[in-house]
Amino acid sequence: MAKKILIVGMGGVGTVAAYTLQLGGAEVTSVIRSDYDIVIEKGYKINSPDFGLIEGYRPSHIAKTAKEANEKYGPFDYVVVTTKNIPDLNNVEDIYADAVSQNTVIVLQQNGLGIEKAAFERFPGHIVLSGVSMISSANYNGEINQTGGDSLAVGYFDNGVNTPEEQLAKAEEFVALYKKDQNQCFIDKDSKYTRWRKLVYNAVFNTIATVTNLDVGRLEEFGAADGLIFPAMDEVIAMAASDGVTLDPSIKQLMYHSDDGDWYAPSMLVDLRKGNQIECEVILGNALRIAKKNGVKTPILDVIYELLKLTQMSIKEKRGLIKLPEVRPIEDPEGAAASRAGY
Amino acid sequence: MAKKILIVGMGGVGTVAAYTLQLGGAEVTSVIRSDYDIVIEKGYKINSPDFGLIEGYRPSHIAKTAKEANEKYGPFDYVVVTTKNIPDLNNVEDIYADAVSQNTVIVLQQNGLGIEKAAFERFPGHIVLSGVSMISSANYNGEINQTGGDSLAVGYFDNGVNTPEEQLAKAEEFVALYKKDQNQCFIDKDSKYTRWRKLVYNAVFNTIATVTNLDVGRLEEFGAADGLIFPAMDEVIAMAASDGVTLDPSIKQLMYHSDDGDWYAPSMLVDLRKGNQIECEVILGNALRIAKKNGVKTPILDVIYELLKLTQMSIKEKRGLIKLPEVRPIEDPEGAAASRAGY
Repeated sequence: MAKKILIVGMGGVGTVAAYTLQLGGAEVTSVIRSDYDIVIEKGYKINSPDFGLIEGYRPSHIAKTAKEANEKYGPFDYVVVTTKNIPDLNNVEDIYADAVSQNTVIVLQQNGLGIEKAAFERFPGHIVLSGVSMISSANYNGEINQTGGDSLAVGYFDNGVNTPEEQLAKAEEFVALYKKDQNQCFIDKDSKYTRWRKLVYNAVFNTIATVTNLDVGRLEEFGAADGLIFPAMDEVIAMAASDGVTLDPSIKQLMYHSDDGDWYAPSMLVDLRKGNQIECEVILGNALRIAKKNGVKTPILDVIYELLKLTQMSIKEKRGLIKLPEVRPIEDPEGAAASRAGY
Repeated sequence: MAKKILIVGMGGVGTVAAYTLQLGGAEVTSVIRSDYDIVIEKGYKINSPDFGLIEGYRPSHIAKTAKEANEKYGPFDYVVVTTKNIPDLNNVEDIYADAVSQNTVIVLQQNGLGIEKAAFERFPGHIVLSGVSMISSANYNGEINQTGGDSLAVGYFDNGVNTPEEQLAKAEEFVALYKKDQNQCFIDKDSKYTRWRKLVYNAVFNTIATVTNLDVGRLEEFGAADGLIFPAMDEVIAMAASDGVTLDPSIKQLMYHSDDGDWYAPSMLVDLRKGNQIECEVILGNALRIAKKNGVKTPILDVIYELLKLTQMSIKEKRGLIKLPEVRPIEDPEGAAASRAGY
């Protein structure tokens, strides 16, 4: 019997995931919000270096909410979460909780570190897989522009209940559903390593590009390498080491050159420029909390994080989620009075 | 005989300086570039809390260059420099050198630290005064909008040739020319102290506001105080101490609250938003070089400075001073090859 899979988050990553899983024979249901009418009318258009040009792609089923999906098309074997993960905006678990049945495996195909914690708190005992994507793909109103080949590393976050073999078996089953001749998908035996490794890029380039509103190429051209990029990468390597993950220093050159030849805007910068909120907590905040706990000094990334939080607030204001009064309030009357006395 | 004064830099600060000096009986010549035709036609319009609304203000003489000014209206007793000071863009000395005669006193009515060094190198033995302005004033095409009362502290940078008394006498003469009942102008007996003190605000609020593109009010509302503003102020106080200047810690609250009630954009942020280059070297870079020489740790401001330099490059690109090729060049082919081999 076909596996039942729910995709939550039909952006550039989720739509390609839906397509390849369905191609592998799974019964794919998608929770669709903004593109619902477009998909009903004409389906997705996907331009992929892996699969070519696909027009009129429709998941097996679509629903507007996880609840509706579960009632009509569940229970699901897998819930694949491909949304952004912004805990300071909302709990991503709320979005898919209604589709998690007793035996549902949750696949967190999302960036960052520490993202499994909230999932385990909410769904204890469930198997939670880790999906780390290397893909450049964006959804513009139902048109998916995938510019980089899909490569997905699938591992598991240890739930402390099932044996490693049981959890790995689910990862293997998922890889079998996802992998095609045209794409890359493989078992990741150490998802903790994989996630720290990716942070050498993401916690540095995504964040500094966003704070400066400059793409990776401009950061290089304008001289950010020696004063910011490489020393910040050293901080990520030190944090990883304190968390038991050894990253070879050669990773720095590899990550630094991974966009060679492109004026590449990392995903967080794309979010900023679109006016979307940014994944500053899972990309940087959670790592810094580990650093702090372990006594690792991260002077550069500490400042970048403080600035990113200000950027996040600024995005919220622009989105109308924060409203400031016309007259600036005086927040600290006592300090203000003291300072006036000092004049 | 009336003192002959040349004003170089007829922005918000320079125009108000020209007006008050002329009111005091000096013969004021101004070097005017962009507003030349407007001033010929109708003069400046100045809206000032000190002097009220003035329409049709014209300096005694105007010229397009310091050379023309000197030939027609020199030699000058004072050259008052009220331009921005951006050594990474141009040498401000080049702009006024032609108007410096044997006995000309140079008044650097500009922000920042270490600005006298280049003046003494270029004009050894001259008396160089320090003017530290507290004024909010901007020039929009010949219309001067001064929103804060003018307060100017005048001291001297020791030239090592004249006696302190001789240098102070010139400062006093200048104060006498500048001071009116309507404004504030006074002798600054310790311009080094005054400049470090002002950096507690400028090196922190100007820079962080610029890096984040957020005004001072938003920095406060969005939570920048404890993680950035106050610890960065501590770094300025430590740098000043290493340079022999003791600042009382109460200065932090005073500076923090100096814009209470206003969504105030500091001058560097205004420059950014206008697309003008920023004074990152005299406001921050020179101070950090002193810190480095003296072994003072400045982890926050080091990062802010690296980011500001990127901002400066970005402004240069937007102004067309830097042209990037359409295809991003690969800057480090050796590193690139090594990184590809690592894949």
